Amino acid sequence: MLQGNSRVEDIGVGLIGTGYMGKCHALAWSSVRAVFGDCARPRLVHLAESTPEKAEARASEFGFDRATGDWRRLVEDPEVDVVSVTTPNQFHAEMAIAALEAGKHVWCEKPMAPTLPEAERMLAAARRSGRVTFMGYNYIQNPAFRHIVKLVRDGAIGRLTQVRIEVDEDFMADPEAPFYWKSEASSGHGALDDFAVHALSMLHLVAGRADRVVTDMSKPYADRPTGDGGRRAVETWDIASVLMRLETGVSATLQVNRSAWGRKGRICLQLYGSEGTILFDQERFNEFQLYRARDPKGEQGFVTVLTAPHHPPYDRFCPAPGHGLGFNELKVIECRQLLGRIAGETDCLGYSFEDGIEIERTIDLAARAFGADGWVARR
Amino acid sequence: MLQGNSRVEDIGVGLIGTGYMGKCHALAWSSVRAVFGDCARPRLVHLAESTPEKAEARASEFGFDRATGDWRRLVEDPEVDVVSVTTPNQFHAEMAIAALEAGKHVWCEKPMAPTLPEAERMLAAARRSGRVTFMGYNYIQNPAFRHIVKLVRDGAIGRLTQVRIEVDEDFMADPEAPFYWKSEASSGHGALDDFAVHALSMLHLVAGRADRVVTDMSKPYADRPTGDGGRRAVETWDIASVLMRLETGVSATLQVNRSAWGRKGRICLQLYGSEGTILFDQERFNEFQLYRARDPKGEQGFVTVLTAPHHPPYDRFCPAPGHGLGFNELKVIECRQLLGRIAGETDCLGYSFEDGIEIERTIDLAARAFGADGWVARR
Amino acid sequence: MLQGNSRVEDIGVGLIGTGYMGKCHALAWSSVRAVFGDCARPRLVHLAESTPEKAEARASEFGFDRATGDWRRLVEDPEVDVVSVTTPNQFHAEMAIAALEAGKHVWCEKPMAPTLPEAERMLAAARRSGRVTFMGYNYIQNPAFRHIVKLVRDGAIGRLTQVRIEVDEDFMADPEAPFYWKSEASSGHGALDDFAVHALSMLHLVAGRADRVVTDMSKPYADRPTGDGGRRAVETWDIASVLMRLETGVSATLQVNRSAWGRKGRICLQLYGSEGTILFDQERFNEFQLYRARDPKGEQGFVTVLTAPHHPPYDRFCPAPGHGLGFNELKVIECRQLLGRIAGETDCLGYSFEDGIEIERTIDLAARAFGADGWVARR
Amino acid sequence: MLQGNSRVEDIGVGLIGTGYMGKCHALAWSSVRAVFGDCARPRLVHLAESTPEKAEARASEFGFDRATGDWRRLVEDPEVDVVSVTTPNQFHAEMAIAALEAGKHVWCEKPMAPTLPEAERMLAAARRSGRVTFMGYNYIQNPAFRHIVKLVRDGAIGRLTQVRIEVDEDFMADPEAPFYWKSEASSGHGALDDFAVHALSMLHLVAGRADRVVTDMSKPYADRPTGDGGRRAVETWDIASVLMRLETGVSATLQVNRSAWGRKGRICLQLYGSEGTILFDQERFNEFQLYRARDPKGEQGFVTVLTAPHHPPYDRFCPAPGHGLGFNELKVIECRQLLGRIAGETDCLGYSFEDGIEIERTIDLAARAFGADGWVARR
Repeated sequence: MLQGNSRVEDIGVGLIGTGYMGKCHALAWSSVRAVFGDCARPRLVHLAESTPEKAEARASEFGFDRATGDWRRLVEDPEVDVVSVTTPNQFHAEMAIAALEAGKHVWCEKPMAPTLPEAERMLAAARRSGRVTFMGYNYIQNPAFRHIVKLVRDGAIGRLTQVRIEVDEDFMADPEAPFYWKSEASSGHGALDDFAVHALSMLHLVAGRADRVVTDMSKPYADRPTGDGGRRAVETWDIASVLMRLETGVSATLQVNRSAWGRKGRICLQLYGSEGTILFDQERFNEFQLYRARDPKGEQGFVTVLTAPHHPPYDRFCPAPGHGLGFNELKVIECRQLLGRIAGETDCLGYSFEDGIEIERTIDLAARAFGADGWVARR
Repeated sequence: MLQGNSRVEDIGVGLIGTGYMGKCHALAWSSVRAVFGDCARPRLVHLAESTPEKAEARASEFGFDRATGDWRRLVEDPEVDVVSVTTPNQFHAEMAIAALEAGKHVWCEKPMAPTLPEAERMLAAARRSGRVTFMGYNYIQNPAFRHIVKLVRDGAIGRLTQVRIEVDEDFMADPEAPFYWKSEASSGHGALDDFAVHALSMLHLVAGRADRVVTDMSKPYADRPTGDGGRRAVETWDIASVLMRLETGVSATLQVNRSAWGRKGRICLQLYGSEGTILFDQERFNEFQLYRARDPKGEQGFVTVLTAPHHPPYDRFCPAPGHGLGFNELKVIECRQLLGRIAGETDCLGYSFEDGIEIERTIDLAARAFGADGWVARR
Repeated sequence: MLQGNSRVEDIGVGLIGTGYMGKCHALAWSSVRAVFGDCARPRLVHLAESTPEKAEARASEFGFDRATGDWRRLVEDPEVDVVSVTTPNQFHAEMAIAALEAGKHVWCEKPMAPTLPEAERMLAAARRSGRVTFMGYNYIQNPAFRHIVKLVRDGAIGRLTQVRIEVDEDFMADPEAPFYWKSEASSGHGALDDFAVHALSMLHLVAGRADRVVTDMSKPYADRPTGDGGRRAVETWDIASVLMRLETGVSATLQVNRSAWGRKGRICLQLYGSEGTILFDQERFNEFQLYRARDPKGEQGFVTVLTAPHHPPYDRFCPAPGHGLGFNELKVIECRQLLGRIAGETDCLGYSFEDGIEIERTIDLAARAFGADGWVARR
Repeated sequence: MLQGNSRVEDIGVGLIGTGYMGKCHALAWSSVRAVFGDCARPRLVHLAESTPEKAEARASEFGFDRATGDWRRLVEDPEVDVVSVTTPNQFHAEMAIAALEAGKHVWCEKPMAPTLPEAERMLAAARRSGRVTFMGYNYIQNPAFRHIVKLVRDGAIGRLTQVRIEVDEDFMADPEAPFYWKSEASSGHGALDDFAVHALSMLHLVAGRADRVVTDMSKPYADRPTGDGGRRAVETWDIASVLMRLETGVSATLQVNRSAWGRKGRICLQLYGSEGTILFDQERFNEFQLYRARDPKGEQGFVTVLTAPHHPPYDRFCPAPGHGLGFNELKVIECRQLLGRIAGETDCLGYSFEDGIEIERTIDLAARAFGADGWVARR
């Protein structure tokens, strides 16, 4: 072991779940110190999966020291300082609360929980524990988006006059794709809770929260084939559209669609201001577009800005402009913010349970507006 | 005069108004026969403006035989067969009705009139007269859009599942631009009636009419400077957002904003279907984008289709693909459709007063929904 | 007839040829005065085609007074002041020279002639006649391109450091398309003379002439099917690439390809300067892109500028920005420049035979470099 | 330590150099097993930098066990199996040869060496050693580019008819940027060797090698400011343009410019074929464009394909399409290919010294053509 760096603290990591996001967390924990150089050194201590066999296989791949088929043993492991919760949404509350009660910091994938009361219980546990909580809203960590937030706050486009957000994918666009759990009512409302949380994590940062909303939701396909040759009625809404008035009085719209053919990971923002406009699309997330009303007339237009070292923390990944970060690398930035929060740094960007629950409350508001078939105000 | 073409009929044209659209009509009348070759030959007979002097100057420029400062003399001119009405909206009803009553065909710029009752009177006059009426909805004449309509009707993207339309410009985006008539309540609701008629002319063709809507409207700027150094409260809404359910059950959204910095002539369509998606933006109206779910997986994406001779009637303007039509040339196509209607052709695309009034009814519906602060159904 | 405008001069127009470009000239003559309002009024006097029947039919469509199957009669018509020569290239010299000798102004489609000696004879006739000559280089009339020239001359991108031009279409991309005259050696070199003249008309304006060049040309397909079931060897080069040193010392490259699948009317310019860059593509010719090195670091990127009324003469077509001109409308602008030259205006943009022959000389230079298999200098 | 995975082999890693590429290698070594799961487990054994202090600091950040200020100690370390050589180009030969002679596999950043004779010596050492050598040509590892190679080989665009490559950046575009080593003749020719190697690594894979070339090179700025207030003449060429004939007879062009304002990491490919076209730009490297001549006429255009799990090995990073990889992640793929080569897998993509030297030979050929001021043939 190197001697000269004894001041570098280690932090013990536990990872529950190794799916899409679990792997993403593992990669972030493996890279964060090499990328940033100025944070604690993660030790990959304990990994939990649904079975011991699966846990051991993943631990070998991801480089964790210990593996378990029982996540409670991970939570109790004294060498674990922080727990990544990356399991399906319905397990978040139980695991996060147990980890907090065991004195661990918690990094929890979004959303907090399928229902608002569960999320409220998680928040209460976080408050009791005094530990750091952190939500997996990785899109806000994108250097392009972080720069957009900075531009808006610095007044680069003046005062906001309207905001539009669209979140679209096509993984449920095929009408003949088999019925699966995302079409069951037990999975939630549909695209609204599945997608809109990402949009809201961005909206809250650049423009604030919704105060009053009206919602429409629809089902592009009434039923879907089941395995046995029959068909089953779809119970969730793949399309949702919401008109919003924000607390600032600004009007905003939110549209989500998970049956939108051709859209792969679209999160389209239109931020209109009194002195300019900013556009962003997650499908090309290493760039954004800016219109400045003050530019000379004959040269006015949308500037396509490629992210570069002067959009921090892009510079920690690459010294050359326009080379592009990957989706997984946003998680590395998120991980660095979490480590900063744990270390007591005050300028880290991200959602604790305290802030994050507001996203869930807006989802709940929009769902109630659909039920009420009219405008509903935030309580 | 040439002898061999005695079978070509002439048609006498009267033009009222010589602003933006008046000039556009004049150019269309001058070019339509040279472009298409298979229609009546327009004779530019009579031009009316607000004063005799202005009328004479424009008549000389545009090549009209006669000029008048009194539009009623034009309407009564026996050599005039068809009257282009291109004056401000509040004059449409009086002029169109007079022309119809004088037995003329009428080509009227959009919208029909500032209020629904006036439009109803225009429709009644049209029915009584039996003459051809034609609305100036030129965006639908674009070969790209006409092909989009064809694709949708032919099932190229399957059954429609959602439609989104946005219409945005920035001519009112400057908060310090002086107060002018578009900010007065007498001009209408604001962006809703100013912009949405174009969007609806397209929506009705590709997807049908709205059955139930809810609307939000907002004012980006509370007041504007007046000439005398003071400020005056803005009375109209520069931003409007509408959630719609169409008669087919499909959900649709309509957003309009005339204070959207950087948008110049944006009409953005997103047509989602069960087998694909079509995108269109008027700012690049010589192209559209198509996603076909049936394409091979590794090669799937949005195809950017440039209009070409196989998108009629592009071929009448140019035998080479990708060379591009201009905004004014859409009016030439519209003019050809009008001449076809007059000649009794049955396959001409366009809105008569009979069809066009449905657009005004949807505007009225959306405005009532805003007043009612909730969902309102078409009567 | 109107009386009040007796000061407006008429100009008698003769049109030889009614193909693609002939129709384009006819439309320009019909519209130019209505669009601009400040020029002579064209009278469509005489039209010539290969047969009297065809001439009469086109004259009826295009609105010409007289028709002839013998172009020499048109050239001798005393009412004709200016002759549009739009026939295939091999006829240009004979017709243009005859028209000039008859005292007419000549508007000749590009290129001047298939060989340099013929072009030299045309130039000599022009000098002898003292009449106005004008070449059909319409791409330079585009308001976007005119603004690009202005930006470059005003130093907006500093001193030019490199220029790249590509001209690509796909009308000969199909290897199984039948052999036709463009594959015969008698038609010229191939893409070089077919396409590069347009590129050079733009290059000469923004960057000056080539001083030294080296050329490669290639044949994508060795032979093509003939009507009789056989195949015939292709004699022309569909692809040409040229390295150039301009008179200013700036390096430039020119690439042309008429077998480039997917390219419809691409003329791609890359203008690199010491303080910025300008990009342009004819397939989206109502916009261009500008990079300014002086912009703030975090907001730097290519601005997509849509043409607008502040890019003259866009304003004569439309008072609203971003609405787009069509390919045919560039010819209307060209026509206005020609009328200005005839009227003695000094600020009209366009190529007389005197300037235009330099384009032909550069083509000849590039062809000689290919023959010499190495660098060749302008004489 | 986990027991159940005793079959997973460890591989000992040594890293020389910790600049831009050194960090990139470190991140790749840290992530490769977690991303792929099916390869040896890298142990980060030894890191060398120019001083012991710098080495220790970087070893702590990157997670290496040992650090040294003397790279020869790393090369001799018996626990090191493979050495990453990421130092400036002039050190590659010495280090790579020493590592090979010590029996290590070598992963060497591009290019092999500043001169062809040095590269030849490296190749000789590789042949003697029998160890695996691997070059850092990461752009070829991009799933989009790998799919492009597959499409071309599978005949998706028919037979290639022309290839164009442009590589442009702007880090030397500022004429007032201080003179530094890249402007000294000792650094090489300029953009040609600095940039073109990447382009050639792609060209060789999709289209083969150049057989005959002619080159022009130019200096946008004659001199640059020095620290002492004076100016020094620039000795290298920031711009180079090459016409090529490939071994297959296909014509190709290569253009490089490191003073191209606005270009950040542009590598633009145009692959024209007898049945279609493929376009690619490294600045948006998570997508490519495909034109298929066989598509229905009215729906033809360039398809923008976003990379997705069906473009391997994208799927190892993310199960969802269109989410995007980062520049650094291409190095992870490269690392996996290297591990495969070491493990004896036969289907790994990448350049050994044996293949890589052909790139250097083409650079040498192009440079000789510039010196000869004419066409030069491969020996």
